[in-house]
Order: sequence, then C-alpha cells, then structure tokens
Amino acid sequence: MIKVGIVGGTGYTGVELLRLLAAHPQVALQVITSRADAGTLVSQMFPSLRGFVDMPFTHPDQAHLEKCDLVFFATPNGIAMQQARGLLDSGVRVIDLAADFRIKEVSEWEKWYGMKHASPDLLGEAVYGLPEVNRAQIKSARLVANPGCYPTAVQLGFIPLLEAGVVALDSLVADAKSGVSGAGRKAEMAFLFSEAADNFKAYGVAGHRHLPEIRQGLMRVAGKQVGLTFVPHLTPMNRGIHATLYGRLKSEADLQALFEKRYANEPSVDVLPAGSHPETRSVRGTNCCRIAVHRPQGGDTVVVLSVIDNLVKGAAGQAVQNMNIMFGLMETTALNNVALLP
Amino acid sequence: MIKVGIVGGTGYTGVELLRLLAAHPQVALQVITSRADAGTLVSQMFPSLRGFVDMPFTHPDQAHLEKCDLVFFATPNGIAMQQARGLLDSGVRVIDLAADFRIKEVSEWEKWYGMKHASPDLLGEAVYGLPEVNRAQIKSARLVANPGCYPTAVQLGFIPLLEAGVVALDSLVADAKSGVSGAGRKAEMAFLFSEAADNFKAYGVAGHRHLPEIRQGLMRVAGKQVGLTFVPHLTPMNRGIHATLYGRLKSEADLQALFEKRYANEPSVDVLPAGSHPETRSVRGTNCCRIAVHRPQGGDTVVVLSVIDNLVKGAAGQAVQNMNIMFGLMETTALNNVALLP
Amino acid sequence: MIKVGIVGGTGYTGVELLRLLAAHPQVALQVITSRADAGTLVSQMFPSLRGFVDMPFTHPDQAHLEKCDLVFFATPNGIAMQQARGLLDSGVRVIDLAADFRIKEVSEWEKWYGMKHASPDLLGEAVYGLPEVNRAQIKSARLVANPGCYPTAVQLGFIPLLEAGVVALDSLVADAKSGVSGAGRKAEMAFLFSEAADNFKAYGVAGHRHLPEIRQGLMRVAGKQVGLTFVPHLTPMNRGIHATLYGRLKSEADLQALFEKRYANEPSVDVLPAGSHPETRSVRGTNCCRIAVHRPQGGDTVVVLSVIDNLVKGAAGQAVQNMNIMFGLMETTALNNVALLP
Amino acid sequence: MIKVGIVGGTGYTGVELLRLLAAHPQVALQVITSRADAGTLVSQMFPSLRGFVDMPFTHPDQAHLEKCDLVFFATPNGIAMQQARGLLDSGVRVIDLAADFRIKEVSEWEKWYGMKHASPDLLGEAVYGLPEVNRAQIKSARLVANPGCYPTAVQLGFIPLLEAGVVALDSLVADAKSGVSGAGRKAEMAFLFSEAADNFKAYGVAGHRHLPEIRQGLMRVAGKQVGLTFVPHLTPMNRGIHATLYGRLKSEADLQALFEKRYANEPSVDVLPAGSHPETRSVRGTNCCRIAVHRPQGGDTVVVLSVIDNLVKGAAGQAVQNMNIMFGLMETTALNNVALLP
Repeated sequence: MIKVGIVGGTGYTGVELLRLLAAHPQVALQVITSRADAGTLVSQMFPSLRGFVDMPFTHPDQAHLEKCDLVFFATPNGIAMQQARGLLDSGVRVIDLAADFRIKEVSEWEKWYGMKHASPDLLGEAVYGLPEVNRAQIKSARLVANPGCYPTAVQLGFIPLLEAGVVALDSLVADAKSGVSGAGRKAEMAFLFSEAADNFKAYGVAGHRHLPEIRQGLMRVAGKQVGLTFVPHLTPMNRGIHATLYGRLKSEADLQALFEKRYANEPSVDVLPAGSHPETRSVRGTNCCRIAVHRPQGGDTVVVLSVIDNLVKGAAGQAVQNMNIMFGLMETTALNNVALLP
Repeated sequence: MIKVGIVGGTGYTGVELLRLLAAHPQVALQVITSRADAGTLVSQMFPSLRGFVDMPFTHPDQAHLEKCDLVFFATPNGIAMQQARGLLDSGVRVIDLAADFRIKEVSEWEKWYGMKHASPDLLGEAVYGLPEVNRAQIKSARLVANPGCYPTAVQLGFIPLLEAGVVALDSLVADAKSGVSGAGRKAEMAFLFSEAADNFKAYGVAGHRHLPEIRQGLMRVAGKQVGLTFVPHLTPMNRGIHATLYGRLKSEADLQALFEKRYANEPSVDVLPAGSHPETRSVRGTNCCRIAVHRPQGGDTVVVLSVIDNLVKGAAGQAVQNMNIMFGLMETTALNNVALLP
Repeated sequence: MIKVGIVGGTGYTGVELLRLLAAHPQVALQVITSRADAGTLVSQMFPSLRGFVDMPFTHPDQAHLEKCDLVFFATPNGIAMQQARGLLDSGVRVIDLAADFRIKEVSEWEKWYGMKHASPDLLGEAVYGLPEVNRAQIKSARLVANPGCYPTAVQLGFIPLLEAGVVALDSLVADAKSGVSGAGRKAEMAFLFSEAADNFKAYGVAGHRHLPEIRQGLMRVAGKQVGLTFVPHLTPMNRGIHATLYGRLKSEADLQALFEKRYANEPSVDVLPAGSHPETRSVRGTNCCRIAVHRPQGGDTVVVLSVIDNLVKGAAGQAVQNMNIMFGLMETTALNNVALLP
Repeated sequence: MIKVGIVGGTGYTGVELLRLLAAHPQVALQVITSRADAGTLVSQMFPSLRGFVDMPFTHPDQAHLEKCDLVFFATPNGIAMQQARGLLDSGVRVIDLAADFRIKEVSEWEKWYGMKHASPDLLGEAVYGLPEVNRAQIKSARLVANPGCYPTAVQLGFIPLLEAGVVALDSLVADAKSGVSGAGRKAEMAFLFSEAADNFKAYGVAGHRHLPEIRQGLMRVAGKQVGLTFVPHLTPMNRGIHATLYGRLKSEADLQALFEKRYANEPSVDVLPAGSHPETRSVRGTNCCRIAVHRPQGGDTVVVLSVIDNLVKGAAGQAVQNMNIMFGLMETTALNNVALLP
C-alpha cells in the first residue's frame, strides 16, 4: 500500500483526488491537511465523501507528511515550492497539482506567477507529468509537476502534428473553452452562478499563465521556437475543456493515421474515427482525452478537437496516473471508469 | 458470471445500466437489443462507452435472450409485459425498469398507462424492487418491477414516518423536483435545451403516473388508505430528484433517531445529521438516497428532504442492486462509487 | 420628470432597477451611489448599460440625495433604516428594496435580521409595497417597504384563498424555488457556478427571513393567525421564483373564478386558464406574476402555482410599480415589456 | 402604421419577432400564419405573449398577405423562395429570416442547402440585410435576405480589418460558439436539454451552411478571394454567439482606432475599450453587437471578440432594423432596450 498524504484538500482538485483515491486499491490515505479547516470532517465539507473518507482535515503542523510515501499538493500556486525540498529530503515523493514546478525557466515562471520562486534549484529535477511525453522520466521521478488543464488538452492535440513536422510552427492557434470548475473553489464574483450561467466570454486574451507552459511543451516536442496564440474562454458548464486547435499544413500527411498511430498505446488518449466531434461529456469524470482531427474542405488548415475533464485528465486523474507510473502500478488503476452521461 | 441481456439500450437508463455493468465483476454482458439501431455499435451512439462496450445493438429477433440468466428491460412502458412470460418460462429472470409490473391492480395500471395490460397474470408474482422494503422477496423473485424515480425518492422519505405511525395519513404532500433526464432520451419539444434551461415549472399536477405507484407503496407500509398530493416539477439540471415531503405530526417522536434507526443497515440510504440540506449533486452518479428530516420552528409539520440520482437509485442503479440481491452477490457490487462533484 | 437617486447600485436589484429606469419616460436619474466603486462608470461594471447610463458611481458623501424626489435603496439590509429619516425630513420619498421596513413588529425584525433597528419609529409609517393589497396607501406613502421576492410570489398565490376564507389557516405550505440571482451579487462560495449548477437543494428549512414577512402579510389578509411552513430551494437558473402552494379546502368554491375575479383588474397578475402550469421563463424580465390554481384529483387540497421574476416583480420592477403609483403615473409605465423567451 | 404579416411564427425567431414588434409603435400586426397550428392562439403556445398578441395563427390560405406592406418569413429554408415572387408582384416588401436569398450564386446555394432554388431570378434583386454594409440598398429594397446569426457576428468582427487591408486573406479563422436556441425550436435529439447541458462540442467542422455566406460577405468587402476556416460550437446556454476571430497582420495599424472609427456611427455595433472581453449576456435580448480587438503579446496575430444575441442581431432584431430602414423610420425603433443581465 502506498501511504499518501494530501496538502490542501478543500478545492475541486482536492475533492476529485479524494474521489479517485477512495477507489484505489493500493492507496492508504494517511492525512489531508487544511490550515483553515483543521478538525472539520472532510465528509462534512463534501457530503459526497460520506462513507468513503472518514478523517478530518489535519493542521499542517500535525500532519507528519514525512511518514508518507507520496504527497500530493492540491494547493494554490506557491505552496509546494516551499515544502517540496523538505519532503524530498525525507524520502517522500511529491506530485504538485499546482504550477510551481511546471516552467523550467525560473524568470519566466516568476514573470507569469508574480512571485519569487522558493526552490529554483528543484526546477531542473522536476519532471513534467504528461505521461504521453515523459513516461520514462516520471517512473523514476521524485518530484512531478502535474500539467495544467489547458496545457494537457492543447499539447495532446498538437503533439502528433509537431512530432511529424507537418504544420507551420509560427502560427498555431489554440482556442480553448473551459467549464467553470477550472477557476477553482474560491469565492470570487466572476464565477458566481449568476455571472457565469447562460453566458460565454473569453478572458486573458492578452496573456494567460498557461501560455508559457503550453509553449514550453510544444517547443520541446518541435525542437524549435513555436508561435502560439492561446485564447481561453469560460463556458457555462461544470467540467470539461474543449480545445479547438488550428495549424497550417506545410506538407501532406494522412492526419487520421498520424494521430491513431501516435496514441495507439496510450491508455488515456482516444482518437475518434474520422469526421467525429468529441463532446466534453464523453469524458466527464474520466481520465480520457478524446481527439478528432479534421481538414475542412480539404484545405491547408488542420483542425484538431481535443476534450478532457479539466478536473481529471486536467488535474487529479493525471496526478493519479503519474502516481501509478511512479510506483510501478498498472497505469489505469482507479482510472478506468466510464464517463457519466448525461 | 451472470449472463445478462438488455432489451432497449438506447435511452438514458440503458446507457446508465451499461456504465454500471461495465464495472461489475460478475456480469458477462451477452446482448443489447434495439430494433431501430441493430448493427450500430453501442459505442458509436455513446462514445463514453468506447473501450468498455464493444458490441453492436442486436435486432430483437436475433438476440437469443433465453440464453441469459437475467434480462433487463430498459424499454418504454408496454414492452416488458409482452416478453416477460416467454423469458420466465425459459428460466430467465427479469428486471423491468419500466412501469409494466409496478402497479398491482390491473385496472389502475390500465387507467394510468392508457393501454391494455398484456400479462395481468404476472402482476401477482412481480416483486416491487425497493430493497429497503422488499429485500427478502427480491432475493427469490423471478420478475422484479424496478420502482420509478419519483416513487423511490418519495417512499424512502415517507417510510420511517408511516411505519412509526407519527403523521396524519390524510394530508401528505410530496413536492418533487426532477432533472430533465427523467423525461428520457426522446425527441420531444418540451425537453429541448432552449425550453428547459433557465426555466422551472410544475407539470402533471392533475395526476402523474407515479402517483398511484407511490400511493400503493405508502398504503402497503401504512396498512391503510393514504391521502397524498404529489406535484412533480422540471428543474434545469441533468440528473437528480429532490423530494420535499410534508406531513402533519400526530404524535411526538424523535424524528432524527427514527430515521437513523430505520436506515441504519441500509447500504443505499444515508440519513444526514440533523439540520442538513442534502444536495442532489451529493448523490450524482451513485446509488445513494440522502435524507434529512426537519421540524421547522418546532411546529407540527415534519419536512423530509430526500435526494437521489434519478438514473441510478431511481433507475439503473436500483436495478443492479436488485440483480445483486437476486443472485446472492454483495448488494453494493459495482455501486460503491463516490458521487461526481462538482 | 421625477428626480431619482439610487443608493447602492452594484447588485442585481441595482442593475435591474437601472435597466427599467433607463426606459422610463418620466424619470431623470440624478445619482447612483457606491462607497466602494465611487468614480467608476456604472457602464464599466455593467457593460449592458453602455449607452444608457453614462454616469459614474458617486460617493455617498457627495450624492446630494436630498435634491431628489425619490430615492431607491438597493442596498443590503440595515442601510436604509439609517438614512430614511433624513431623506424624509428633506421631503424626499423613499422606496427600500431591502428588508428594513417590511416587518411591523420591531422585535420580530430584530430577531430575524440580527441587528438593532435604527428607526423603529418609521415602521408604523412605512407602507408595505404590494400594490395588489396596499395600492391606496402606497399612493400617498412617503416610505415604501418593497416586498421580498418569495413573499411576493407566495402572498399573491395565497391571497384569493385567504380573502375568500376557503382554506384551513393552520396548515399552509409554501414550497418555493428560486433562481440563484436571488442570493444577490456577493462573492460567496455557496453561489459559485460550480456549487449551484446541475444541483438542487433546499435551504433555511429551520427558518428563513421571508417567513415572518409572508406570515405577517397572510395574517393581515386573513384577519387571524396563520400556520405556515415555508421551504425555499435553490434552483440552477438565473432568474425566477416558482412557488408551489398547498392548502386544505374547508369549503367549496369555484377556485378558477375566485382567482380570475380577484385579479381581474390587476395589471401585474395574470391568472392562467384552468389546467395551466406557469413557467418561470414566461415572466423573465417582466413585472408579471402568473398564477394557476389546481385541485388535484378533485380532492380537498388546493395547489397554487405562482411564478415571478425575482428581480422584477420580486424586486426592482415592483419598486418601479410603486414609484409609478406614488407619483400618479400609469402603473405599468416602463413595465410593459414582453418576457424574454427562450 | 406599417401593416405587417409573419409567415411561420412558431419558432424562436418567430416569437422573438413578435416580442420586438409588440413594442413597435409604427407596426400594425395583421396576421401570423402557421399551417400546423392554425386556429391556436399565439399566446397559448407562448404564454409570454399573453396580453400582447391576442390573435390566433392563421392558415396560410386565409392569410391575405398581399394586403400587408411587409411580410417577414420566419420559416425553415425553402419557403420564402416559393412565395416571395407573388408578394413582390402584389407590392408587398419581403424580409426573409431564413437563408433562401442570402447566397448570390444559385449553384452554391443549391449545393449547401440541398434543394433546387425556386426563384433564382430574385437572387440578383435580393439585398443582403447587413445594415453596416448595405444600408443604402436596404432602404429601397423590395426583398431583403436577413443574414444568418454566425455570419452577422463573424462579418462584423472581420470587416474593419478587411476594409483596411491589414490582415492576410488566406488564413482567416472564425471559431464561433452558439447558444442552443440557434438550432431552432425543433424536436431533435441532439438539442435535448440532457444532450446539450453541461456539455460542449464542435459540429459541422467539415462544412457548415454559414461558411459560404460568410465567405461571400468577406470577399465582397475585401474585393478578392478569402481563405476562411469556420468552426461552429454548441454551448450550453440559451442565447448568444461569441465569435473569436483570428487573422495574421500584414501591416501595422492602430487596431483599436480602426474599429472605433469604422463603427462610430453604427447604432447596433459597440466597440469596447481596449483590453475588454465582451460577454454574450451583455447583449442578451438586444440588437447590439459588442466587439473587442486584441493583439496578444504584441505579435502578428489579431484576435477579435464579437458577441451578439443570435435571436436578435442574429435574426429577429436585425430583421426589424432592416424594416425600420426600409420604411424610413428611426433605425433603432423598438430596438433600444437594455440587455437582460443576469
């Protein structure tokens, strides 16, 4: 049994992580910390967990995380970078679901996240936890930076094209739409039901924190500079990301075959038949990324449609997938459920 | 392994049944029939099932249902009553998720359902599949009438009060609110997104088909006539029923203790702490009924709040629960998941 | 032209009031105050008002409200009671959209609202602004207490029954469902999209602030004590209240005729034909209350369905209606629009 | 008074047209036809119109449309093209809200709409009713082809860029998101609440009927061939289109000034301040198109965000705007309302 601790379990990625771990046969949950809610039963805050998680939130000072085999950080940005070093030194492996270790270049990170990085020395060691790209490194990683939700959907959609070198790299467009849970469980006006329901809008067009993360990932795959325009939108639904990706073809290719071949052995990516339009609900509650590739009117623009559940493959599920890889388990353990539809 | 067949798998109860059975370790799905969609892959209609259900819909004439151990009818009303006799004679056990065998009195059934009953002789044998009331009979039943969604939520909320005899029976009120999936997967104008979204309405106030079913169940428990006003409402959400139940207390009782005791050993009913307000999302995707009991202002009106997922405890989940009971399995097999929240 | 000031215009009732007043031919909006947002253009906060309201929010200290003919308070509870006296003394008439002057008995108010009342002496003078009951007094009122949203829907539904004396007064039930905008525009966790969407729940079953207001109104109409159980629910929609009302008939009556006659001359109440089920969207954006009355199965329970838009007839629209009455205008001025459907 | 007839008033554009015309001071509605619902009161189908539209639907054979000054076709595609000739010959002016006269080239129309055009001779005369481009021709037009919803949002967003010649014409991308009412009021499975709610998907990526209409409009403005990729998406909301447009800049320009200047005198287009993100709800129920223009990271990609209400500026409102122009009225008559928010 893997002894697991969770730092920060009161947000949506936290409760989703608990949902998934509750069904994991090789996990022994040790502790869930929360400074503000220490002493409160987890299942009091989330009645959905009644009968599954019976422990209270523990104050970080009493958490004894160093006794765990693995600690997940389901915290705001800026927390994991302060505690990771100590845990690693105690022999604990760490998966950060926040952004602290996603960007390799510390100046870039500090620019986008607006704070000084507390552990720049760990950035080199941290493995970017996108199994479809980094599976081997994840296996032996002590510290995994779990990818962001948009970056997961966008990278998985672009990767086959970039690896095959069939699209122009200077003008990629990622038009992405997210459900509101992507904004987290924070009392902010903009995410009130009455602000977000029956409404649709773009945000962060001038620059979103996931832009450098996506760009870094695409550049690594392409092996050169990438020009990317990324526009996120807020959609009136709870869960789901739909990324619509545009690229200009610079050479001929059987796009359908390209995608099918690239992901043939990936348990968490499902390439749909030609002509398909994946729906976000088809992955609701699952760790699956469903992708379709189109070439409208036979022109020179390729359109990729990529959907994930932002809280699963875009957060907690991918974290569990990474854990499974790190601990040598079947990669899909506790992740092999059918989407909830409707 | 239980050899299972499904008649009619193209509706919401059908796809939900498939979702649950896909995770059931003791079920071997043999066949899913559909007259209109024979030959189509199930997973083409429901991409959420890709990788889980790989068979096509089979035409009823080629289904060989008689080779199954159990057949679920996830059909419109009026189908199961025509085929049940033949299957039972072949030694196949039957669970009907529709309404054909729910009402004991044939004239009552024919009045509410507007058709002649094809197998009135089976009504006596059919066991009403509410495990919290009929577990023993279900165990040995050949033919189970799976309860309706409203009837499940309403009966589970009223039963402790009626069994204890603490409320007046002449003036029960059940004000129930359902998500739109309760209307089924049929192309009807009233259930279009643009008709149902951002909207709320009552319907069927003059008389809804679930009224006689609820009344029959309550009368059986109370042992006498029951006066019930039942008003269903359509709520702009996918899943969930919230029943708000009103009764007039005629004797003192510790209501909280009454409910907790009644359901202490029930795996699918969770009585919340005093003062709680159960949310439908706390049972989304689960076979759980969450209940809270209130006595506002200490007056003589008791208010019970009862929530279920209409497609799970209100349909497919309860059907699987009944199957588990009928075949001597652990009752919660394949039903022990955490609700999807948010 | 009526010189109008608005205190507190940053909430949903505020922006709705601005929407309605922008179309009012006899209103000259003078000032909108906001302490926190002084200097910000109203239309920057609410782009829907671009081209209609071109002024900034004014700090209360610079507002010169005493130069207005009428001041609306679209503030949280507890503000109007501190400022009304001064305005009245300056000859300004006041409509409070909050609860400060709704309850006649000061101790009752203080118990439910948890604060000391600052102007108990004004409670006697304040007129409860439900035109269907108090039109004459509103006409000459200096201070109008605009009713709450639930109280408007519930009272209008019960009034014909109580005036006619046909229902038992000891066991009225009001099961009410509200859209989320009823919670106001406040950054609170419970009203986040991801908490409220695809979800349904009751709240405040033990006691809601609108209970004493409704009870007071019903008692005034009935002329005696009234036993009322009031259960509010949160529905995943922006606007709308649907009140489902239950009463036990104690004498025979032509209920349809009773309702039609009572509201024959009311411009803001529409009694639907027998057998109807009013939808909340049928009044979206309008000052109309649509009502249907049922007697299910011909029994002794009467069921009234009453729908309003909580922000219009339940708040800003009723305030404008009261203003129209107070200033001798056509009562429906600026309120005669068609509902937005879908 | 303009004597107005409506052919086909049972869909969402029909009821929206009725909502707008009910408030129009110079319109005398003569007749609304419906073959299927002749004899039914319009307000019975749409209770929101109770008190505003008191006539029944009239059978087309008894409609005497030739006595009208203007006839709106709010019908499916293929109806107006059969009746327009007769009406025009009787001196009646016609506005078709469907697609019959939108495409100039008959072969192109027949290819995309899958039927033979009944009046190809009228295509030359028909004026494409986008006032921001064709105001002068609309003024004297006998036959107006009211633009589609996507084409309105997309063209208004691209026009300033194309007129100024600042973007490359070979690689325009229009990623558009629509509320479900855009699919019309038809009983189709895909638009059921339980199919569309809490879900997001693209559709018609291979080719959507609005593509040739948009392309024709852009080519007319640009004066040369245009390469456009158009991907429509279905969003879980009732109303609203959000078009996110991408172009590659080929020359420098003050984009904000460009847009502001182009639309300075347009009553139905509102260019937001630099850095804005227009929300669909900011135009809900109004004839306004709100636009913001961005140049992310100062790169060479321009991003335009354009929102309309698909049923108003995208259908019925633009039709009324066209009527106002045709009959020499103030262009904003009956169209000058504030958006309903929330």
